Amino acid sequence: MSGSITRLHANQADFEQRLSQLLAWDAVSDESVVGVVDEVIAAVKERGDQALLDYTNRFDRTNANAMTELVMDKVQIAQSLSMISAEERAALETAAHRIRSYHEHQKQDSWSYTEADGTVLGQQITALEKVGVYVPGGKAAYPSTVLMDVIPAKVAGVEQIVMTSPTPDGEINHIVLAAAAIAGVDQVITVGGAQAIAALAYGTDTIPQVDKIVGPGNIFVATAKRQVFGQVGLDMIAGPSEILVICDGQTDPDWIAMDLFSQAEHDEDAQSILVCPDADFIDQVEASIKKLLPTLEREAIASASLYNRGALIQVEDMAQAIAVCNRIAPEHLELSVEDPEALLPQIKHAGAIFMGRYTSEALGDYCAGPNHVLPTSGTVRFSSPLGVYDFQKRSSIIHCSEEGASELGKVASVLARGESLTAHARSAEYRIKK
Amino acid sequence: MSGSITRLHANQADFEQRLSQLLAWDAVSDESVVGVVDEVIAAVKERGDQALLDYTNRFDRTNANAMTELVMDKVQIAQSLSMISAEERAALETAAHRIRSYHEHQKQDSWSYTEADGTVLGQQITALEKVGVYVPGGKAAYPSTVLMDVIPAKVAGVEQIVMTSPTPDGEINHIVLAAAAIAGVDQVITVGGAQAIAALAYGTDTIPQVDKIVGPGNIFVATAKRQVFGQVGLDMIAGPSEILVICDGQTDPDWIAMDLFSQAEHDEDAQSILVCPDADFIDQVEASIKKLLPTLEREAIASASLYNRGALIQVEDMAQAIAVCNRIAPEHLELSVEDPEALLPQIKHAGAIFMGRYTSEALGDYCAGPNHVLPTSGTVRFSSPLGVYDFQKRSSIIHCSEEGASELGKVASVLARGESLTAHARSAEYRIKK
Repeated sequence: MSGSITRLHANQADFEQRLSQLLAWDAVSDESVVGVVDEVIAAVKERGDQALLDYTNRFDRTNANAMTELVMDKVQIAQSLSMISAEERAALETAAHRIRSYHEHQKQDSWSYTEADGTVLGQQITALEKVGVYVPGGKAAYPSTVLMDVIPAKVAGVEQIVMTSPTPDGEINHIVLAAAAIAGVDQVITVGGAQAIAALAYGTDTIPQVDKIVGPGNIFVATAKRQVFGQVGLDMIAGPSEILVICDGQTDPDWIAMDLFSQAEHDEDAQSILVCPDADFIDQVEASIKKLLPTLEREAIASASLYNRGALIQVEDMAQAIAVCNRIAPEHLELSVEDPEALLPQIKHAGAIFMGRYTSEALGDYCAGPNHVLPTSGTVRFSSPLGVYDFQKRSSIIHCSEEGASELGKVASVLARGESLTAHARSAEYRIKK
Repeated sequence: MSGSITRLHANQADFEQRLSQLLAWDAVSDESVVGVVDEVIAAVKERGDQALLDYTNRFDRTNANAMTELVMDKVQIAQSLSMISAEERAALETAAHRIRSYHEHQKQDSWSYTEADGTVLGQQITALEKVGVYVPGGKAAYPSTVLMDVIPAKVAGVEQIVMTSPTPDGEINHIVLAAAAIAGVDQVITVGGAQAIAALAYGTDTIPQVDKIVGPGNIFVATAKRQVFGQVGLDMIAGPSEILVICDGQTDPDWIAMDLFSQAEHDEDAQSILVCPDADFIDQVEASIKKLLPTLEREAIASASLYNRGALIQVEDMAQAIAVCNRIAPEHLELSVEDPEALLPQIKHAGAIFMGRYTSEALGDYCAGPNHVLPTSGTVRFSSPLGVYDFQKRSSIIHCSEEGASELGKVASVLARGESLTAHARSAEYRIKK
């Protein structure tokens, strides 16, 4: 595929307009998909395991006679550990160890304080009970995502983690199962699609009803997640992945090109953008792109992504580079500069920040420790990487002393009467000392 | 209104079925409402302030000629402080002070740690930049909710807080504005409905585009919030309010009845449930309900709520009471018992827990300190009270040393090749020392 990558200058008159067009992304909300998904959900709610079995045999071309054939317990999951190479197993274990260590820092504890009159206030923080992890089948199944989805839930203390993943034509992905074993999944159900999401949301005889569903999936899975939201919690509905690289022009241009490719190779809608104050360096990166693209296994995908959605943006200086970054609010941000620490306080919005020339995004994607499940499409303005906090919940604790209830009762009474909620007022007034 | 409240025993054969029916709640998703809302959103996106002005004049029967007439700055907001009674102002200030003190405990700080080879990992925690707070107009406007929505955002460090609230027929609610002044709202725009939500989500010349919208509203507001989700963050789409009271039978039955009323008076769909092991005490509470209902200002609403959606549930013992509570996962839970601390560790799901006979829910609704914006309809299984954490977001920080990048590069390379993402692998491999 031939083509060229968009070049912009942040000072050009139509920059904001061109940038907006480049960033524009509308998730397709196809009514026919919604129709199919609603039908699948209704069938699973009504007929449970039987519907699950029927859909799985039909869509995944399997021949299961009973749901028991589609369930793997911990012992069966662990068998995959011997089906992968020693090198792969060691890499998964190193990654899991580092992800676990990092996420331990996110765990939050219950807290409370006691006021002078003996009233106790606080929050009881507990883990979600049951979590469902969806893992796509076939080539789109990433063992690294299994680690990233499951380990924070384990660190939070979730009691039961059920993974669902289709095995089209009965093909099992042993690296994915090995990752599930290492991460600590309790049960794997080899079903997928909207039917898996429906089963996790409403429960069947075989699949437990969970409190939250995490994990990526195709348009049917994403649509089903939207439809069951409220019945269960969700991680997020992810858009295409994005990287913004800010470079001072002193990094090897081949490195920058490859970093852009590492996002572009995901899919044709992925977005890779370089921001740099040095026009010559941008030329060098463009030359590296032309030179290296043909050497990529996933050249077709990467070039479509780069030529349709990528950009090389020249800026006046680093201050303007930061302004462009905060405008874009990227999922991944590489600060490929001499002193990244100096820029950090100015970064308002970014999902994960890769600091310095040595920290390529790929290191964070796999094994540095932080989560690779990140908000996309500018939603980092108001949301955060997947973390232990997504698997914990809080209950407010209020324990008034007799004295405290009497004093607070007077305040509550005035405010409740101001809102014409007199039963509230009288309930508070009962506790005022005579 | 005459009627009677449902009585159940947790041991009866059809208990789970009866309870499910009682709890069932489907938010009406009316297609005609969605149609109107989509039209309003499209108009505001396209015509901005002019659409906002047209809709406001039409729906709220106002005669504004320009948006400037619908905007109040901090000085104008503060004028309402002199329009309310000294008693009301003092009560609002006490409540605000206590809410602020409590929420200060929730603020989270950035953290990082350095590994042996110099690699730094952490999370940068920052406040959202701009937040929109929706406040319903007329009688449904609660100053207490203004405090609960705004103060956590202020504590988080949000730079700009814009409140939108309609003034039907030009009628201004001074207690609501006084609460906005005390809580620290920067700007009040007197527009409401789906048009206000659209303006906050997409921005107009007058209204800034915000990162998150919080606050309750009618079906048009709730539907508009759903439609703009993703473009902005949201608090939650709340269902009707609920209380579950667990009583050991030793509290004054009038107190328990009034606590049930304080939920039931909200609206006809609100749900009040008592769980108690003592049949005689349940009789006494039922007698108190019959005696006190006719004395309520909002008798019609409270009785409709109690007779249609309320219940008095007898249980075998406290263990069964807790099991019923965890099944229901209530928004509000009162533990009106001698030793509430003993029960606390067994409570898996509750939005706010009111401990002991003196802690009526009303105290927490107004001034104890914890937030009264809580997950409803069983969603406490996976979500939390509104808090400072809802106005903070996290960016992962990864700063690899040369040594660290080299070691991690080896692991990332193996895992990336296992996923056939070879540009990821090569990007990592560039950083491996030769």
